[in-house]
Amino acid sequence: MVLQTSTSVIIALLMGIAGVGFVIWQLQRVLRYGQGNDTMQRIAKAIQEGASAFLSREYRVIAIFVAIVAAIISMFLHWQTALCFVVGAIASAGAGYLGMYVAVRANVRTAAAASIGLHEGLRVAFGSGAIMGMSVVSFSLIGMTLLFLAFNGDPNQLIYVTGFGFGASSIALFARVGGGIYTKAADVGADLVGKVEKGIPEDDPRNPAVIADNVGDNVGDVAGMGADLFESYTGSIIAAATLGATVSSDSAAAFIGLPFLVAAVGVISSLFGIYMVIGEEKDVTHSNIFTSHALTVRVVHFLRQYVAVIDENATLEDLLSALRRSVWGASVMILALSLIAVLVSGVHFNYWLVILVGLIAGNAIAYATEYFTSYTEKPTLAIAKATQTGPATTIIQGMAVGMMSTVLPVLIVAASILLSIWLGHKADGTITAGLYAVALAGVGMLSTLGVTLATDAYGPVADNAGGIAEMSHLPKEVRHRTDALDSLGNTTAATGKGFAIGSAVLTALALLAAYVTAAKIDNLNILGPTMLPGILIGAMMPYLFSALTMMAVGKAAHEIVLEVRRQFHEIPGLMEGTGLPDYKACVGISTESALKEMIFPGSLAVIVPLIVGHALGKEALAGLLIGTMASGFLLAVMMANAGGAWDNAKKWIETGQYGGKGSDAHKAAVVGDTVGDPFKDTSGPALNILIKLMSIVSLVFATSFGSGWLSF
Amino acid sequence: MVLQTSTSVIIALLMGIAGVGFVIWQLQRVLRYGQGNDTMQRIAKAIQEGASAFLSREYRVIAIFVAIVAAIISMFLHWQTALCFVVGAIASAGAGYLGMYVAVRANVRTAAAASIGLHEGLRVAFGSGAIMGMSVVSFSLIGMTLLFLAFNGDPNQLIYVTGFGFGASSIALFARVGGGIYTKAADVGADLVGKVEKGIPEDDPRNPAVIADNVGDNVGDVAGMGADLFESYTGSIIAAATLGATVSSDSAAAFIGLPFLVAAVGVISSLFGIYMVIGEEKDVTHSNIFTSHALTVRVVHFLRQYVAVIDENATLEDLLSALRRSVWGASVMILALSLIAVLVSGVHFNYWLVILVGLIAGNAIAYATEYFTSYTEKPTLAIAKATQTGPATTIIQGMAVGMMSTVLPVLIVAASILLSIWLGHKADGTITAGLYAVALAGVGMLSTLGVTLATDAYGPVADNAGGIAEMSHLPKEVRHRTDALDSLGNTTAATGKGFAIGSAVLTALALLAAYVTAAKIDNLNILGPTMLPGILIGAMMPYLFSALTMMAVGKAAHEIVLEVRRQFHEIPGLMEGTGLPDYKACVGISTESALKEMIFPGSLAVIVPLIVGHALGKEALAGLLIGTMASGFLLAVMMANAGGAWDNAKKWIETGQYGGKGSDAHKAAVVGDTVGDPFKDTSGPALNILIKLMSIVSLVFATSFGSGWLSF
Repeated sequence: MVLQTSTSVIIALLMGIAGVGFVIWQLQRVLRYGQGNDTMQRIAKAIQEGASAFLSREYRVIAIFVAIVAAIISMFLHWQTALCFVVGAIASAGAGYLGMYVAVRANVRTAAAASIGLHEGLRVAFGSGAIMGMSVVSFSLIGMTLLFLAFNGDPNQLIYVTGFGFGASSIALFARVGGGIYTKAADVGADLVGKVEKGIPEDDPRNPAVIADNVGDNVGDVAGMGADLFESYTGSIIAAATLGATVSSDSAAAFIGLPFLVAAVGVISSLFGIYMVIGEEKDVTHSNIFTSHALTVRVVHFLRQYVAVIDENATLEDLLSALRRSVWGASVMILALSLIAVLVSGVHFNYWLVILVGLIAGNAIAYATEYFTSYTEKPTLAIAKATQTGPATTIIQGMAVGMMSTVLPVLIVAASILLSIWLGHKADGTITAGLYAVALAGVGMLSTLGVTLATDAYGPVADNAGGIAEMSHLPKEVRHRTDALDSLGNTTAATGKGFAIGSAVLTALALLAAYVTAAKIDNLNILGPTMLPGILIGAMMPYLFSALTMMAVGKAAHEIVLEVRRQFHEIPGLMEGTGLPDYKACVGISTESALKEMIFPGSLAVIVPLIVGHALGKEALAGLLIGTMASGFLLAVMMANAGGAWDNAKKWIETGQYGGKGSDAHKAAVVGDTVGDPFKDTSGPALNILIKLMSIVSLVFATSFGSGWLSF
Repeated sequence: MVLQTSTSVIIALLMGIAGVGFVIWQLQRVLRYGQGNDTMQRIAKAIQEGASAFLSREYRVIAIFVAIVAAIISMFLHWQTALCFVVGAIASAGAGYLGMYVAVRANVRTAAAASIGLHEGLRVAFGSGAIMGMSVVSFSLIGMTLLFLAFNGDPNQLIYVTGFGFGASSIALFARVGGGIYTKAADVGADLVGKVEKGIPEDDPRNPAVIADNVGDNVGDVAGMGADLFESYTGSIIAAATLGATVSSDSAAAFIGLPFLVAAVGVISSLFGIYMVIGEEKDVTHSNIFTSHALTVRVVHFLRQYVAVIDENATLEDLLSALRRSVWGASVMILALSLIAVLVSGVHFNYWLVILVGLIAGNAIAYATEYFTSYTEKPTLAIAKATQTGPATTIIQGMAVGMMSTVLPVLIVAASILLSIWLGHKADGTITAGLYAVALAGVGMLSTLGVTLATDAYGPVADNAGGIAEMSHLPKEVRHRTDALDSLGNTTAATGKGFAIGSAVLTALALLAAYVTAAKIDNLNILGPTMLPGILIGAMMPYLFSALTMMAVGKAAHEIVLEVRRQFHEIPGLMEGTGLPDYKACVGISTESALKEMIFPGSLAVIVPLIVGHALGKEALAGLLIGTMASGFLLAVMMANAGGAWDNAKKWIETGQYGGKGSDAHKAAVVGDTVGDPFKDTSGPALNILIKLMSIVSLVFATSFGSGWLSF
């Protein structure tokens, strides 16, 4: 039986709509929670205004950018691609907006709910994360499927839909690169004057940059991470569908439809995973519509036994296992459902194994990341030990750990590629089938994104909740609970970064394969005249991009330092707590300088592929993409893990080891952590965007490249 | 006219022998200089004994390694290759031994000669460097040409001679990786106890590790750098000759012979460059044999006007320009002579342009390196400025500078490859001709190695001379002169590193092309099933290798710290200057731990290509080499330049900027410098070896790889 592509696409559309339904319901649920006392509400209000100021400023710039690029695309390619581009940008920006909207409202509610109990706090924060996760998945699915149906499901028009991915990538560029610069500039700027010059604690409301810092947490880890994974999710599905059209002419429909079908059942699995953490609210259990029918009663009873039980004495390990169980639960379910999808589609059984490979790879990378960055393990403990001989050895050991931590992710990705290609090749006997399988592995890895992203986007909400609890001097046991929730967020943040990089590489690879197909490149001989220069320049791009983004943080932080100093100098009684700081000014300056500083690196990511493609030809461009992917993967993992390990080595010392806070070892650890900040929160994650954006630009413009002006 | 290959080879052999003649003459000249007072001689003696202890220990290990590998080669390949391997190892080890022998004798003589005048000091130190430079070139040429002639100049037997390159690579592995660990471990170990714990100055004879530290300077920058460039020089000629055999069957003889011919005229040019610095000794001028004939009188008069004039008031700039003029003089001469070589060989004029491209690229990379690491330029000054806000910003800015500094070298190498391939392709119309041209550009870049290596190997001699002058309390004006000579060495060391990396990349690329030809790979499709995993694993190798070597420095330094502490504790009167430290024990421990720590990373470089080649097949192995080359190039440049820039930022502050020595800015700069030490002296340079060694192993075993056990 071969399923019609449009059937699969319509199922995906329906699941997307179901996801939106969940988002609306969950939004109401989260917003129904109480917001605590006046102080809490005042602080939350300031963060909300800051976030809103940042978003409205950023989205204005994005609107101009999107309009210009859409015009260029219409001019040089087709109006259809331009339309898809605009829709993609709107879909991703919409998901980001919604995620931010709820995150800066859920933070204060989490703090308030933590007064009731630990699980209640987790429910609110995780619910907020789930809204981000499901918005990303649903908006992406609805956008892609509607466009696909608008083009009558014609495989030849699939190339237009690549514009949707380009639109999503553009938003990711702003959210991840601009957001990454914003978040670290605000963080460093706040600390440099507050902690270092004025000697006031972190999260002190007297610090004019404290709100910008809190906004930054959301900008980086909610909007930034969301847009990054929106791009991966979209890119992997588009690449798989594009490649699917070329695997076999007989069953092209099934191959094109499968990634949509897998994504569709992924929505169900993600919802189940989310349910496992949130459960049902006690007051609505009896009126639950599901309990009105005998069969559904059984189903609900069956499901209910998997809901996490979090009591008041829950340790970090218990909380972590609740989140892990939810991801695992979703994974088990997606395996069952995607087996049905594969059987119904009528494609070879091997493609189900490919989905399995993708899922395992994603989880394996996340675990490898955790090993290298957790302070219960050797690598981070070695950094902590190195702090005893000063900051220099701390940095050297951290760099060594970061470099060493690249080995496992590379081997995992390499093995997944090899296995996927092998399985695809065995199934249909062509190289294209192998490449399709690689793309499908990427779809598999990202199929449970609704819940995995929820665990990421949960983090900054818990972090903010902790800050609000601190600033409003809530009772000790409440702060103890928000601290527990915050620690959980820090752990998931590190593994989330590993997952984001791994999925970016698989997506970039799938897009590269789609580019080669779309550009009609017959032979990609590595020793061809322009390939090696292409590879070398490509390998250089991540270094250039990282250098620029790291320096951008320094410049933007400097502007904030000047403003914070000015306010302490000019506003009477600010230090004494009688004068009110001008939070908005700091948010405004962070926003402006972050947007200004991202222009040059951002343009490079778009322009360099176009220049290389036109000057050196389409083969050299493929080389460029491979070079960027390989070198960017390594550099991103190194930076993210070194940064995470330094961070946790510091936290380990703060538990009282090697003299604890204030000791020389701690000072050295702070140096490591400060170096690691732009590594893990700006330059490292920005590389995810670089490798995908360069690939999608190449794919969108694939048909415009020839043998190159400089060819011979 | 097409020259017989054997004619070119014999010319190269004769020039090699002439080079040996120069080495012997120069050795006598340098050793004739006075050795100063008793204290100086005692210190020099200790360094000599330390160096000798290190070398004899290292060479014993090498002998075992060489015997085992030679046996393996005989078993799995041919006895001829094994023979070449042994000869290559002996030639490189011999050159290294000679260079070290004279360096640890020239140091004290330089200090003594500096009492006479600045130029006299320069003459001795540079003469010692010239011995290393010319030994490398001559031993390599004599070894290769004799083996080539032994195989009757049969192009089909060229593959055996690749064993010579493998032998040279093995020595480079020990000298550069083992030596790199040794030199930094001794440096860090000496500083940690001496400067930090005991508060005694650097180069204080009471410190038991001071001699190990002085030996280390020679081990790293004389033996290490020499073996590294011996490998590049040898590898580029072998690769060019191997590829030359396949360009065109008509004139294969000319293509094979040309690299030898270029190398041969390079010897003459290098000698001229060396003459430009050293000139003639005043007391022997009249008895000079050259002045006995009318024509030679004219020639000598003509040449004499180019000899550098160094008076007592010479600034660093004057000294630098004297060395630069010598390299430029040699470059101009090689261009003239290689034009004749190209015309005589009967190959297309384009190949002369290719040599020009190589020469320009080498110099351009050296200048780009200087820009990024010199404290008269913006990048290093930006690091110096960042020291004002502490060690963290110093590290971040240094990393950013290091990353930024990769852009120019990559563009230079990419442009050279493109131009060379284009020129070769235009000349003979095949891809192989293009690849041959790339290899020839590498030969061109390295043709003046005799003099460029002299400027590198000069550095540690001047450095040691400074240390000896310090320790023996020589008069202020003498120390002023040795300081000037030392500063000059620091500047040339940074550019030398850039040159070493650039030449390593071109050599690795040429070896890769030779490998592809030798393994009879028809099509290197990047999207083939095993290529991408190969590229990714390859890109990971430099990270793993760097992590291992960085951690090795820490471990080895720790052992030295324990020993130095023990001596201060157990030897009575050591601190008061009445007890004698046991220098040998420190040298022994550094040697043992360096050799122990290099085993694992060193084995990886040899074993991984063999595993990948056999498991994933010969195409995947090509991917591995490309990945390692691209990623290793970037990482090596980043580490070397960040390290150099941190070093010079510290030196800039020590001139009195930002509070000078002892200020907080200086403390931050010291952290940067300490992090930079293993970057620039251990892990960075070790990557040169990694990329070449993996390529030559693949080339030597090329015929043994098939489609791989895991292929399908």
